[in-house]
Amino acid sequence: MSKVVIIMGSKADLDWANKIVDALNGFKIDSECFIASAHKVPLECYNIIKEQEKHNPVFITIAGMSNALSGFSDAQTSCPVIACPPVGDSFAGADIYSSLRMPSGVAPMVILNPKNAALAAAKIIGLNNDEVRTEVSKFQDAQRQKLIEDNGSIRSN
Amino acid sequence: MSKVVIIMGSKADLDWANKIVDALNGFKIDSECFIASAHKVPLECYNIIKEQEKHNPVFITIAGMSNALSGFSDAQTSCPVIACPPVGDSFAGADIYSSLRMPSGVAPMVILNPKNAALAAAKIIGLNNDEVRTEVSKFQDAQRQKLIEDNGSIRSN
Amino acid sequence: MSKVVIIMGSKADLDWANKIVDALNGFKIDSECFIASAHKVPLECYNIIKEQEKHNPVFITIAGMSNALSGFSDAQTSCPVIACPPVGDSFAGADIYSSLRMPSGVAPMVILNPKNAALAAAKIIGLNNDEVRTEVSKFQDAQRQKLIEDNGSIRSN
Amino acid sequence: MSKVVIIMGSKADLDWANKIVDALNGFKIDSECFIASAHKVPLECYNIIKEQEKHNPVFITIAGMSNALSGFSDAQTSCPVIACPPVGDSFAGADIYSSLRMPSGVAPMVILNPKNAALAAAKIIGLNNDEVRTEVSKFQDAQRQKLIEDNGSIRSN
Amino acid sequence: MSKVVIIMGSKADLDWANKIVDALNGFKIDSECFIASAHKVPLECYNIIKEQEKHNPVFITIAGMSNALSGFSDAQTSCPVIACPPVGDSFAGADIYSSLRMPSGVAPMVILNPKNAALAAAKIIGLNNDEVRTEVSKFQDAQRQKLIEDNGSIRSN
Amino acid sequence: MSKVVIIMGSKADLDWANKIVDALNGFKIDSECFIASAHKVPLECYNIIKEQEKHNPVFITIAGMSNALSGFSDAQTSCPVIACPPVGDSFAGADIYSSLRMPSGVAPMVILNPKNAALAAAKIIGLNNDEVRTEVSKFQDAQRQKLIEDNGSIRSN
Amino acid sequence: MSKVVIIMGSKADLDWANKIVDALNGFKIDSECFIASAHKVPLECYNIIKEQEKHNPVFITIAGMSNALSGFSDAQTSCPVIACPPVGDSFAGADIYSSLRMPSGVAPMVILNPKNAALAAAKIIGLNNDEVRTEVSKFQDAQRQKLIEDNGSIRSN
Amino acid sequence: MSKVVIIMGSKADLDWANKIVDALNGFKIDSECFIASAHKVPLECYNIIKEQEKHNPVFITIAGMSNALSGFSDAQTSCPVIACPPVGDSFAGADIYSSLRMPSGVAPMVILNPKNAALAAAKIIGLNNDEVRTEVSKFQDAQRQKLIEDNGSIRSN
Repeated sequence: MSKVVIIMGSKADLDWANKIVDALNGFKIDSECFIASAHKVPLECYNIIKEQEKHNPVFITIAGMSNALSGFSDAQTSCPVIACPPVGDSFAGADIYSSLRMPSGVAPMVILNPKNAALAAAKIIGLNNDEVRTEVSKFQDAQRQKLIEDNGSIRSN
Repeated sequence: MSKVVIIMGSKADLDWANKIVDALNGFKIDSECFIASAHKVPLECYNIIKEQEKHNPVFITIAGMSNALSGFSDAQTSCPVIACPPVGDSFAGADIYSSLRMPSGVAPMVILNPKNAALAAAKIIGLNNDEVRTEVSKFQDAQRQKLIEDNGSIRSN
Repeated sequence: MSKVVIIMGSKADLDWANKIVDALNGFKIDSECFIASAHKVPLECYNIIKEQEKHNPVFITIAGMSNALSGFSDAQTSCPVIACPPVGDSFAGADIYSSLRMPSGVAPMVILNPKNAALAAAKIIGLNNDEVRTEVSKFQDAQRQKLIEDNGSIRSN
Repeated sequence: MSKVVIIMGSKADLDWANKIVDALNGFKIDSECFIASAHKVPLECYNIIKEQEKHNPVFITIAGMSNALSGFSDAQTSCPVIACPPVGDSFAGADIYSSLRMPSGVAPMVILNPKNAALAAAKIIGLNNDEVRTEVSKFQDAQRQKLIEDNGSIRSN
Repeated sequence: MSKVVIIMGSKADLDWANKIVDALNGFKIDSECFIASAHKVPLECYNIIKEQEKHNPVFITIAGMSNALSGFSDAQTSCPVIACPPVGDSFAGADIYSSLRMPSGVAPMVILNPKNAALAAAKIIGLNNDEVRTEVSKFQDAQRQKLIEDNGSIRSN
Repeated sequence: MSKVVIIMGSKADLDWANKIVDALNGFKIDSECFIASAHKVPLECYNIIKEQEKHNPVFITIAGMSNALSGFSDAQTSCPVIACPPVGDSFAGADIYSSLRMPSGVAPMVILNPKNAALAAAKIIGLNNDEVRTEVSKFQDAQRQKLIEDNGSIRSN
Repeated sequence: MSKVVIIMGSKADLDWANKIVDALNGFKIDSECFIASAHKVPLECYNIIKEQEKHNPVFITIAGMSNALSGFSDAQTSCPVIACPPVGDSFAGADIYSSLRMPSGVAPMVILNPKNAALAAAKIIGLNNDEVRTEVSKFQDAQRQKLIEDNGSIRSN
Repeated sequence: MSKVVIIMGSKADLDWANKIVDALNGFKIDSECFIASAHKVPLECYNIIKEQEKHNPVFITIAGMSNALSGFSDAQTSCPVIACPPVGDSFAGADIYSSLRMPSGVAPMVILNPKNAALAAAKIIGLNNDEVRTEVSKFQDAQRQKLIEDNGSIRSN
């Protein structure tokens, strides 16, 4: 079964990464975290990607401000890459465009919310893993059930 | 092997969808297209998703303006969903936020460029399909080779 | 007399909904609240709309982030729908465009302020209900009177 | 039965107004057009509103650039007001905020697309007019049918 | 000598107005404040403008959110109008466009900072009033002197 | 009587300046045009301002892109300065902020439309010149009359 | 004397690069162009930088859309890097933030206009090269002279 | 060896300037600070630039809001100018465009982060100063080492 490889551009992104790790655990998916900046240590970053690629993972890349890491990673591997950038408030959050505006042939998939990034990775892995897929379905059923109960609770008052 | 199911919100999106279909063909991936609006025909849209979900596809959803389709689709299936909205120029392209700003538990993955959406789908399918994965690698190698040749060509003048 | 049916996408929107309910009470208009996500429980959402539509209401829909609910609701009913999304600060409030940028044939009417949404609903109901219309006129007269008094108060100093 | 009163801020808005008139005709709704600027001829504008208000209409206001007309109109009548501003491309369409950012107690309802403004007006009138309501339902059914046929047409190839 | 007439759209703008009044006092210019909303009490607003216009003032208009007051005032008087809107942070301050985007023939002059609005009014009045003009020059000299002293202070360390 | 001194940052702004000159002629106001960049020839620019200031003019400054000229001019004269920048479409017209975002004590008054800049200058000059003031009133009356006729014309059909 | 090394991310940027080359020629500065994408061929890009760095150049990097190249280059060399991205109109030119929003320790210097990028490089080289510095001064004098002549030309009419 | 000359537009920018001074000290580069507004004291500002230019410095200019200082400085000297504006949050940080949108022939180089501005200045000076260049390389090596250690630290847990 594919695991998830999380690469973050700086140790400052560790809390963000751990939100993804926790959510992946909820889907019974193993993950491994790395710190590597595409700007500052591209050779080390390249080596991590090529080494991890052998294990057939889904990559999740985390880089704030100008996000070079997600495109760099995606272009160096045939595995899927989810970009989950911790976008701040500066310039109305315009950093998101550095994750979205990829040239032709570079295709990281962008998700804003770290829990949602884990869910998307789970759906990808679930395509070929029934246990994970069942966890995804259970998660989706639970949130549907929660909404129906919430509706009942405000209407029974 | 997973195929790709493309759902577009209007027949006006057919050209955009065909760009994805063509690129998927290049990766030797079958695809099937549907038209269904989450706003106007949600029950039909739901039925398409549930029927196609049985075949374990990667979904790609196409909806311009306010994109309800991608979140709707993602929340109704345990399969992965790539949102590839044809974002126009109005309001500085702010329609993209209707694809990105998903609530917790709804996780379409956003890609702007239709060829890149096909590449991302190929990477997902390639996780468990060597033939597709090889096509992805060949594509990536070719674009690397193209860049190296381009560099040579301007430098030999 | 028409009542107002408020549908919110999540229980987290309850405070926002209650501001509308309170303002409707001020216009002597009954309202009923429901929780239903167009993303997560579209069938339940559809059923609420079709059931409530029988009572000839004005709908007010409340959904933050990417607003699928308002367009979904509007397209499923011949009754008028007012979208009153609780737009946050992220991305300079660009979520508003998911309420505004509707395709042809989908026509929720957008109002930012929840009290104003109640006022607009009262004006609609007042078209055929003299009691409500009188309440609207009294409200408008009172705010005019307040401005004239405020002007007097700063000028008598 | 309520008619629709369209007030536009300048004769330059006449084409935009006529799109609304035509769509209202499709719903069998009469309309009447006026030109009056809240900036330049506020007394004339006020008189039009007060005179037309006697006939219990739905107002639709059309004003480009900084939209004073919609708020001015809404605050002077107990009838509902739909703002349908012809927003241009300058400043990324930021003119829309002059229609949306109303003070407390001023409640025009904003719709971008002129045909959709007509549809919304028809829904309001249809609350108490079965003929118009039937026209709305027929319109909605037709667009659903069109989507289903479009889906069929691309899938039978 | 011209005085300044300040019209604010709501009593909530009184602190903003007082900043202008205080700065005008510094230039030895009298001012008078009024509260009148162009949305809610246009007839009263009109009467204030026409009555005050007789005294040949410079108008300063203050209105937050969608600013109808500045254009309304400017179009009703042959005296100059300075718009000094208290622009908030919502939607990245896009309210400013409701002050700027005036139709042809409506010409309020926009200044963001209330003290600067007072300075601009002083410069206008100073064109024909030597006392005020001298105050403006003294103010400008003082801020130049302050900068030169500041430069000296950091350089003598 | 005050004339208007127009300073433009580049000869490329001459068409824009001429729109202002023509509109000033309509108000029977003389004007004189200069080319001087606050970036490139600040000493020449300073000398023009100090020389012209002796004649007690209203200044209108024209500078595209990053507008240094308007603030530079305003801070060097006790006469009023209207900034009328020819804002382009790049970056959603964000150049306007270089005209608006002035530090404390620098107070150019911003107007987008060149004809409106001329009108505002006429209103300023009209405060102490009855002929110009009469021209402003005639202009305003004419545009009111035009609107009333336009309203009549579409209603007599 | 330092030369300028221009690295562009794609052959599509060649016209943009040539504008810089031509302007550098005007300052009598040699330049050399390379094509290398930090996303797609980072190792080749790294090698170009390290090889060229030996010659002590000023680097100018050209990359549209999400600009990884400029930060990548800057972090791999102790030589100065000027980022001159060909920013398009999509999303109101928000691509510029991928050039500006650099993490701590990565310091490309951003210039929008390609001729200005050449001028900035010339100023850097001119710090230690009198011939280039003289060319810069001549260029600046010429543009000052041009402005003074332009001012004369419109004033002699 | 070139020193760095820092010009700030107001004493309020002193903390920002000191961040640059401290970082320059880390690269063993001397600096000198001046306060001078291009708006308010352009002649003094001009004199500072011309006097300091004799010492062959790199200039760093600091001006918030509408930044006239950087373009003014750049156009008055043949030495390189780095603009490091303290951009605030108002209007989504749109002040940055007053630093970026320079006319042809005016070429300040923009950097957002004050430490990065110091690093860029060090790289420029390092082109002809081995001691400074060595400091730059040591700084870059240290941040690479830090990243590698950070990666090791989270992976050894």
